[in-house]
Order: sequence, then structure tokens, then C-alpha cells
Amino acid sequence: MKGTQRFTALSLIAQKRDGGELAVEAIRWLVPAYVSGEVTDYQMAAFAMAVVLRGMTPRETAALTLAMRDSGKLARLGKRGGPKVDKHSTGGVGDKVSICLAPLMAACGLRVPMISGRGLGHTGGTLDKLEAIPGFRVNLPLARFSRLVNTHGFSLIGQTADLAPADRKLYALRDVTGTVESIPLITASILSKKLAEDLDALVLDVKVGRGAFMKTLDDARALARSIVRVGTLAGVPTSAVLTRMDVPLGRTVGNALETAEAFEVLAGGGPDDLVECTLVLGAEMLRAGGVVKSDAAAQGLMRDAIASGRAAAKMEALVKAQGGDARVVREPDRLPRAPQRASVQAARSGFVQDLDALAVAQVALRLGAGRTRADQAIDPRVGVVLVKKPGERVERGETLAEIHAADSRSGRREAAALLAAFRVGAHKQNARALVIERIAR
Amino acid sequence: MKGTQRFTALSLIAQKRDGGELAVEAIRWLVPAYVSGEVTDYQMAAFAMAVVLRGMTPRETAALTLAMRDSGKLARLGKRGGPKVDKHSTGGVGDKVSICLAPLMAACGLRVPMISGRGLGHTGGTLDKLEAIPGFRVNLPLARFSRLVNTHGFSLIGQTADLAPADRKLYALRDVTGTVESIPLITASILSKKLAEDLDALVLDVKVGRGAFMKTLDDARALARSIVRVGTLAGVPTSAVLTRMDVPLGRTVGNALETAEAFEVLAGGGPDDLVECTLVLGAEMLRAGGVVKSDAAAQGLMRDAIASGRAAAKMEALVKAQGGDARVVREPDRLPRAPQRASVQAARSGFVQDLDALAVAQVALRLGAGRTRADQAIDPRVGVVLVKKPGERVERGETLAEIHAADSRSGRREAAALLAAFRVGAHKQNARALVIERIAR
Repeated sequence: MKGTQRFTALSLIAQKRDGGELAVEAIRWLVPAYVSGEVTDYQMAAFAMAVVLRGMTPRETAALTLAMRDSGKLARLGKRGGPKVDKHSTGGVGDKVSICLAPLMAACGLRVPMISGRGLGHTGGTLDKLEAIPGFRVNLPLARFSRLVNTHGFSLIGQTADLAPADRKLYALRDVTGTVESIPLITASILSKKLAEDLDALVLDVKVGRGAFMKTLDDARALARSIVRVGTLAGVPTSAVLTRMDVPLGRTVGNALETAEAFEVLAGGGPDDLVECTLVLGAEMLRAGGVVKSDAAAQGLMRDAIASGRAAAKMEALVKAQGGDARVVREPDRLPRAPQRASVQAARSGFVQDLDALAVAQVALRLGAGRTRADQAIDPRVGVVLVKKPGERVERGETLAEIHAADSRSGRREAAALLAAFRVGAHKQNARALVIERIAR
Repeated sequence: MKGTQRFTALSLIAQKRDGGELAVEAIRWLVPAYVSGEVTDYQMAAFAMAVVLRGMTPRETAALTLAMRDSGKLARLGKRGGPKVDKHSTGGVGDKVSICLAPLMAACGLRVPMISGRGLGHTGGTLDKLEAIPGFRVNLPLARFSRLVNTHGFSLIGQTADLAPADRKLYALRDVTGTVESIPLITASILSKKLAEDLDALVLDVKVGRGAFMKTLDDARALARSIVRVGTLAGVPTSAVLTRMDVPLGRTVGNALETAEAFEVLAGGGPDDLVECTLVLGAEMLRAGGVVKSDAAAQGLMRDAIASGRAAAKMEALVKAQGGDARVVREPDRLPRAPQRASVQAARSGFVQDLDALAVAQVALRLGAGRTRADQAIDPRVGVVLVKKPGERVERGETLAEIHAADSRSGRREAAALLAAFRVGAHKQNARALVIERIAR
């Protein structure tokens, strides 16, 4: 560090308020000062609002990202072993891709140090899905996590208390001060945790549409570009794939149901859109890690890893290593099941023309599959199975979807809402392409 | 109130962040919720920053002003007696006009319920000046204040704890979160206290220049227009006079020195600029209160009130009523005097061409006449007497100014800084006009 420059919260707030660009050193002072309490919550709230309205340059955002990452411990995976590549999704409905992808990539020679989050509101969380596996532990210290990644090629854990504590503190503040909607702050929040994973490369799945955090293509592009630019600026080559999230991904929404569906993919089955999303992101990761040069080579490698059973075996080994009942991987029926089922029938014959991801998510949320506050408990058993999806034929009276409920009353209560999520019409409309575009530097 | 609309801090912050106009009811919910702690400091800080960057309409500012006023008690002066008119100054160096003006206006038939502030930084405070009077009490409850105003035609007190507590809480927060610089927030802060005085009309003295809070004419105009508009919208006809504050007002800076100078004006003397400022604002108040129709009538009334001794008698009666030694009004030498004097001599002959108000204020501050933190004690005795002012002739070696100090060392230490505040040159330059313009609806 050069000199002994003195910063104050007030001067940094004023500089950002007036549209200035903060020095990297100023940001590297601000973040630990906030964590220690020298900079107060009300000062940080004013600063965050100034950032929401004035923005940050990529240089400032990279400095913020690294300062938040460096507020905690970092995973240390070492050089020995495969390239270290992770995937992060901005979150959608029915998005269980991480559970398919991590063991698949490990089976293809990558190391995947995947630290995931919990669900909040209408989007599910990988941790909640994994916890549907009896005995599976997601709260492991970073040292144990690093060993698991080096032994099994991957590990799936939750954010530890010592991982980017500045992000946790700032995110909680942003959540109650109207300062969530900021591309630079979202970028820094996502990347500060991912860059603590000791990665060689990172792939983003930026979801776009009514079931996603980013509702418009413009917003999604802006976020993707920001993360790609800042991640790469911070030393980790980053690319992004924009994928459509108007309709739930796969045919299940709900924790145990989704985990079972992810295991189907590892066994060579699973719904087309989920398989496509997994393979597209997998190919991106394998190219980013330098394992393959072409998309065709990546596809071949992945299909072989699945067909040979190696991907499923990776998952079994990890579930066992993290304390879970490994039999669930090949026998998903062993996962907890809801005691009550209710089916929703089509009121007319025709084609499913649309299926509203947000409406389906809200049904699952009310059934108990999700939470609206961070401290709420969830029920791993409940959720929705989408028997028909857009583009498919249905006859009047035929089942469109199944509700898995904790009790018969809540199941019946949600039937109308779930039916309303479907649009059935006379003409077949083809589903829109899942992948919208790829963004890289 | 119509209906039972539910507001949340988060929704109001988001609305302002996105550039929306808040409903009057929303603002009337926000302010008491902040005072009670239901809305937290960090939420209010984010909201204040959104206001700084997005602004507020006059309607929103008026609602904020009234909600802050209504967070505390209001003076109740009743209908019997003269029109109730106050003056507020945005603060300058050597500004003792309130002490001249309040008794003068009372002598002319107005009721002046004047609640003043203390000095902070380079600007002095009327309360500090009044407290130079032995025994004079400025901390009186609102009920006693109201009786004094109705008995004597005026009273001079400080902000009581129950006067606009929302403003006190919000101002303390703005001070540490970089959210002071906002015309709507400054407007609401000033007016919330003034509108608690039960006024018929209000006159603003908006100071402009290097010794003022507003450094540029544009900023001063914007603030004056905002206060005039919002005050009038809130039911109190308000007008403003923009006056120059590049040079100290009068020939004294420092508490007892300034109080003595104000008493000179009441006795028919005093420096020209101070007398002019007093008479201009007094005429504005008399017209606003409907006591006179024309400026000429106002001037006649005021000159008679001074020449007859009625203005000074009003001050004597009030000083006595508020516990002070009333003899100081006619015998200002009874005010506390600094033990040490040091004079500053001109290094060349010529004309005083300029005198930097801010530099003089900083000398006075360092001598102990002011404070940089709200909890600091001040020395009423110390300060500066400006023997020469711009436009006046000085010979080499002649005294330009006198330092009144607590000890000889601090007096000597400030001599060079005080000398540097003067510019002496060969040519006479006329002082610029004190009054810049008048702003009314």
C-alpha cells in the first residue's frame, strides 16, 4: 500500500453521490470498515443508494467484489487435479441444473467447488433440494470442502459463516433499504462468493423471463455483461449463457421432486429442456476449463459420462461422503414423498400453449416448498409435477399436473391456481428456444 | 384519514429511488414512523439519499415539512395582538440582525416569536450571542415563550426538545450520511421549526457568498424559491431577500462583541451595512404582516421606533423578563470582555479592497468564539473587531482590526491570519450592494 491515505465514510458517500469514481484503495478501505462497524449501517445504506442511482464503473465493481471476497476465508484447492470451474445461475423455477451438472463435470475431469444458496421467494435453492436427501450435510467447513473437491472432483455445500461476510452483511442491509436493484451491487454479491472458490473459470446461467429475477432481455444482458467483465477483470475468465425462464425448467417444482429429476438426468433420462440446459452449460464449462476445444467434443464427453454411469457414480460417492443415503441416486423413490396427491385436469382438449413459471412457483411456495423469509422452514416433500408442458397435446379430463401436498386441504386449495397457470388452446405452438445467447469477452 | 392504507419503508424508498412522487399520506406515515423507530436509521438514510438524487416536488416537500413540524409541540399565540411574523437567516459571518430586528419589529407592532439556533462551524448562532448577556436564559418552555411574545411583542429562545423532534433526528442522520445537500431536505428542516411558531408570515434572509452556506447565486436562488413556495403552500406566506455574504456583516465577529453591536443599532448607531440589512428585512416583515403598505412607511416607522428609544426599551424589557441584566442594552460595556487585545496593522497604505468573511470567521472560531462540534463550549468574550472595511482608506501602520483573545498567545497566533483576510490596494473599490434581490410568489 502506498502512503497512509485517510478515508472517511462521509467523503466516500459524497463522492459517489456526486457521480465520482472511487479509488480502488477507497473501496478496499470501505468494505472491512463496514464489516468492523467503523462504517455504520446507515452510512452504508446511503452509500448503497448512491450506487443504485449513480452506478459503478467495472473497475470500482471489481474492487468491491475483491474487497468483499477478501473479507472472509478463501477455498484453497491447489494446482494438482483438473481445471477448477463452477457454474452459477441467477435463479429460476424448477432449476435443478447444478445437481446434474456438478457430478457430470467431475466425471468429465473438472473440479467443481460449488457453494450454493438457499431459495427465497419464488426461486428455489440448490441447498434446499440437496437437503431432501436423508442425512446429506451441506454445512461443511471450507477445508473439508476443498478436500472433497480434490477427492471427488466436486462438492456441494452452503455458504459458510467465514465466506465473504461483507457480502452477507451488505446483502441483508440492501434487502431492507431498497438497494437490491443495482447491477454493480448484484455483480459484486454474486462474484465475491464465487471468486472465493479458487476458480480457473466461471460460467453464468443468467435466466430471463417472468420466472426469473431479470424480467427483460435488456436487464439480463446488462447483468451478464457486467459479471463477465468484472469476473474476468478480477482474474477469473467468465462467460455467460442467457436462458429463457418463462416456463419452469423440467417437469418438477419442489425440493425432493427436483432432486429426483436431477438424478434421472444422471441416469440418462430426464426432460428434454433440463437435459439441454445441463449440456449447454456443461459444454461451456468444459471449454472454459480447456478440457475440450469444440462443442461436439464436449457433447461426446458428457454423453459418455452419463451413459457409462460415471456421472451417477460421482454423485453417489459425494452423497456418501457428505453423510447422505447414497442409494437415492439410483433409487429416487427413496427420497421423502408427500402424503397427499391431487391432480389437475384439463378443462378442454387441445395443446398446452403456455405455462406460467411464476404462478407454478407461487403454488409450490404456498404448499411449503419455499420460504418468503430467510428463517422459515420448508417441507422437502411437497411440490408440483408438470405432466404436460407447452407444445404437448392434452385431452379434456386428462391430467395436466399433480400436486404433492402435506395435507389434502392444501392440495385441493392450490388446484385452481395451478390450473390457471396453464393455457390450453386449439393450435400447437412450439416452445421457444431455451438458449437465447452466449456472452463472453 | 381515508381508508387504512398500509405503507412500508421499503415501498416508499423504492418509489423515491425510481423517481416517483410520494403521496402526502405516505410522507405523513413515514415521519412519525421514523421518530418511533419503526422506520430504521438505515432505511431513512437510503431514503434521504434517494431524495438528494431524485428530488422532491413542492407538494412532497410541504408534506414533509408539516409532518416534521407535527412531530412535536406547536407554539400557540392566539389571534389577539399584532400580526405574527418571524425572520430566518441561512447564516453568515457577523450576522447579528435577529437581535436588532426582533425588538425593533415588536416596537413597530408585530409579534415576533423567534426560535433560534446555535452556531456550528464558521457561522455564528443567535443563541450564543444572546448568552453573552449575563443571566439571560434561552431555554424556556413553549408555553412561557408564547406568553412572553404576547406580553413583550417578541421573545428569543432556543429550540426546545419538544419542537420538531423529527427534524432533530433526521438532521443528525443527514449530517453523517452525506445527505445534507438537498434543497427539499434543507427547506423542510428550516420550515418545520419556523412553522411551529404559529406565524402569519415569514421572511427569509438567504445569504450568498463565501461566508454563507450557499456559495453561488444559483444555489441561493433555488433554496429561496423552494422555501418561499413550500412555506406559502404550507399556509404561511413567505418571502425571501438574497443578501451578499462575502464580507462580514458589521464590524464585529464574536458573541459579546456582536451583541454589543446589535444594541448600538437599537440606540440609533451601528455600522451602515448592519443597519441596512436590519431595515430591509424589517420593511419586508412589516409589509408581510400588513402593518404598512409601502416601503417608505416602513422606513419611517422603524426610524421612529429607534429614535424614540422604544426599540431599545423593548429589548430591555425582554432581557429582564428572560432573567438577564437589562443594563447591558444601554451600557454594552457591561458585557463580558476578553482580557487580551492585539491589533493588526496595515502593511501598506491604500484602500481596503476586500475582506474575506470565511477567513475572519475561522480566526474567530480558533479564538474560541465558535464550535466545530455541537458539544463544544464557546467563549463569549473573544472575537474580532474590524476597524476598517472594504471601501475605506487605511495608512501604513494604522490598525485594520483588533483581536479580542482569552490569552495573549492565541491573540498573537491569529494576527497573521487576520491580516491575510484583508486585501489592501492602491485604488478604491466600492463595496458591492448588500441586497441582491427579493423573491416572493
